[in-house]
Amino acid sequence: MLKPRTSVQNLPAYHSPLVWREGLRLDLNENTAGCSPRVLARLRELSANDIGYYREREPMEAAVAEHLGINADEVLLTNGMDEAIHLLCATYLEPGDEALLVVPTFVTYELSAAATGARVVKVPAGEDFRFPQSELLAQVNSRTRLIAIANPNNPTGVATAGEELLEIARRAPAAAVLIDEAYFEFYGKTLLGGWRGLPNLFVARTFSKAYGMAGLRVGVLAGNAGNIDMTRRVSCPFNVNVAALACLPAAMADSDYVRQYVEQVREGREELQHEFGKWGIPCWPSQASFVLAKIGPLHAAFVRGMEARGVLVHDRSGDHGCEGCVRISIGKIEHTKQLVEALRKTLTEIGVKEVTTK
Amino acid sequence: MLKPRTSVQNLPAYHSPLVWREGLRLDLNENTAGCSPRVLARLRELSANDIGYYREREPMEAAVAEHLGINADEVLLTNGMDEAIHLLCATYLEPGDEALLVVPTFVTYELSAAATGARVVKVPAGEDFRFPQSELLAQVNSRTRLIAIANPNNPTGVATAGEELLEIARRAPAAAVLIDEAYFEFYGKTLLGGWRGLPNLFVARTFSKAYGMAGLRVGVLAGNAGNIDMTRRVSCPFNVNVAALACLPAAMADSDYVRQYVEQVREGREELQHEFGKWGIPCWPSQASFVLAKIGPLHAAFVRGMEARGVLVHDRSGDHGCEGCVRISIGKIEHTKQLVEALRKTLTEIGVKEVTTK
Repeated sequence: MLKPRTSVQNLPAYHSPLVWREGLRLDLNENTAGCSPRVLARLRELSANDIGYYREREPMEAAVAEHLGINADEVLLTNGMDEAIHLLCATYLEPGDEALLVVPTFVTYELSAAATGARVVKVPAGEDFRFPQSELLAQVNSRTRLIAIANPNNPTGVATAGEELLEIARRAPAAAVLIDEAYFEFYGKTLLGGWRGLPNLFVARTFSKAYGMAGLRVGVLAGNAGNIDMTRRVSCPFNVNVAALACLPAAMADSDYVRQYVEQVREGREELQHEFGKWGIPCWPSQASFVLAKIGPLHAAFVRGMEARGVLVHDRSGDHGCEGCVRISIGKIEHTKQLVEALRKTLTEIGVKEVTTK
Repeated sequence: MLKPRTSVQNLPAYHSPLVWREGLRLDLNENTAGCSPRVLARLRELSANDIGYYREREPMEAAVAEHLGINADEVLLTNGMDEAIHLLCATYLEPGDEALLVVPTFVTYELSAAATGARVVKVPAGEDFRFPQSELLAQVNSRTRLIAIANPNNPTGVATAGEELLEIARRAPAAAVLIDEAYFEFYGKTLLGGWRGLPNLFVARTFSKAYGMAGLRVGVLAGNAGNIDMTRRVSCPFNVNVAALACLPAAMADSDYVRQYVEQVREGREELQHEFGKWGIPCWPSQASFVLAKIGPLHAAFVRGMEARGVLVHDRSGDHGCEGCVRISIGKIEHTKQLVEALRKTLTEIGVKEVTTK
């Protein structure tokens, strides 16, 4: 075998995300309604030549920018948000640099940063996953070149006030500060455009969640035009596929579809949190399309019991500060009903009792 | 603006490939027949949930490996071959390393290698674009960590004997030696599996050319299982989109479609080379789906004249050793007819005379 870069050799072994999953998939924060019918209709119009030709992303960068109310040169479309994170790391990080993360959080920041040879510094979230602003600022130094923060955070669902995040960008002017807004539509608050006052601020968005297009892979990296120009140099020109590019206008036009789905998720989120309350199971106030709940020592039995009832949920016990925790995605109302039913049976089966409500 | 890595700042400004092109597209080596009808039929079966869910590439890695006659752990599927090159660079190159290329060649090797901070060393091809084996070997040193070679080469179409390439891998055991076989189907010879004797050998393939799926983005990086495992660690798990993954089995099953297209390209290649001969215009014996011809000082007028007749060709005058050269893709027979007709009119217009054949 050929010796790779030390930073790559030190990466964890690759594990495929769960494959060939059968059941109601509430384990990967997917949209359980799928994409808009308009997207599907557009997909079916593609011709053999559409498939055979390379298609440039530029016209869609202009369209997405208009949709977001920013300028075309402030947008780079990417092969899912994963690639946005990867390109940001490739643009700003090299051996000797440091990347700062809050844990628990989305794992891709750590993997993409570590692959570059930069040192990854993890700052634990506070009580109830509070954003550790002062602890994070205490770690900023002259080598800090990237700070990645999901807002709302994943896997907790906890959101942080925009002003707290802007302060990070203000106090770490030599670092690219990425605010990952993958779950923006379920939250409603954004820092988009914030780079006009703070040029080191980046915001990432995705069409995978509220728009239900995870399979087509469309991420958005947005920021200061000069910075985006640098990330563009590192990108491959045909990184976004023709199915995604062709369907984007249909997805953006069908705002009703997204709104109706988001409403269902918000309603289901309330319902699930209320349900956990009835069983005395702590969960955190989520602003995203999932809920993190502390099942406790029986977490593995809970996940197995749910799976036996056809509902897949994600054991997050291995994440920092998430001992005994399970993350459950929220989808359409009918799926929340199915989820709650399976949950009641499973909790009863593993011996959890409903608490008396006063 | 935030200062990026020096290696990124030194990359050339991003230029979008030709956008919104009208006419017969013979400028980007696309398949003019598009994808197989079976691929299109499969695409149209995708459901809203197929679009909404993440789909893992692993089952298709096994299927592609079987199709190629190698093992599943020797295959990494990538977002087009561009990403295969990018991942190989990210796995093996860091600042202080060197990457070796033969010029002229496919531009992505240089861009992806330079982005890592490695030094790119370019070795000019010999007379008539002969593969410069000894000149390349003379540049191999302890810092050489990547050598990328397209076979057949692009933009020349010239092929190199496999044994010459294997010798490179043998004499540079600490370097990842990539043989880019994007145009394999039009050539017929491969080094696939060669890594079993030479563990530092990699072969890349694509479904963009003979299979006509450039828009869907499917590349293949193949090599020693241990090495591929390292590139996999750097890859994002959902790098290949659902449309591509769903359609791959249909594409691989329709071998007739590929064979018929390849036959048309081979016939058209002969015809175009013969036609250039009639006009006294030198061109190189191509084993790929395009022909490079030395139009001479009138190359720009030639490209404009062809475009005015609805045929897009690629001016390669800026490539090393390609002064006055134009690269023309070959497609279906009917497109070659259209090409030759436009070519005759254009050459006449710019004052080229047919030479007397004896």
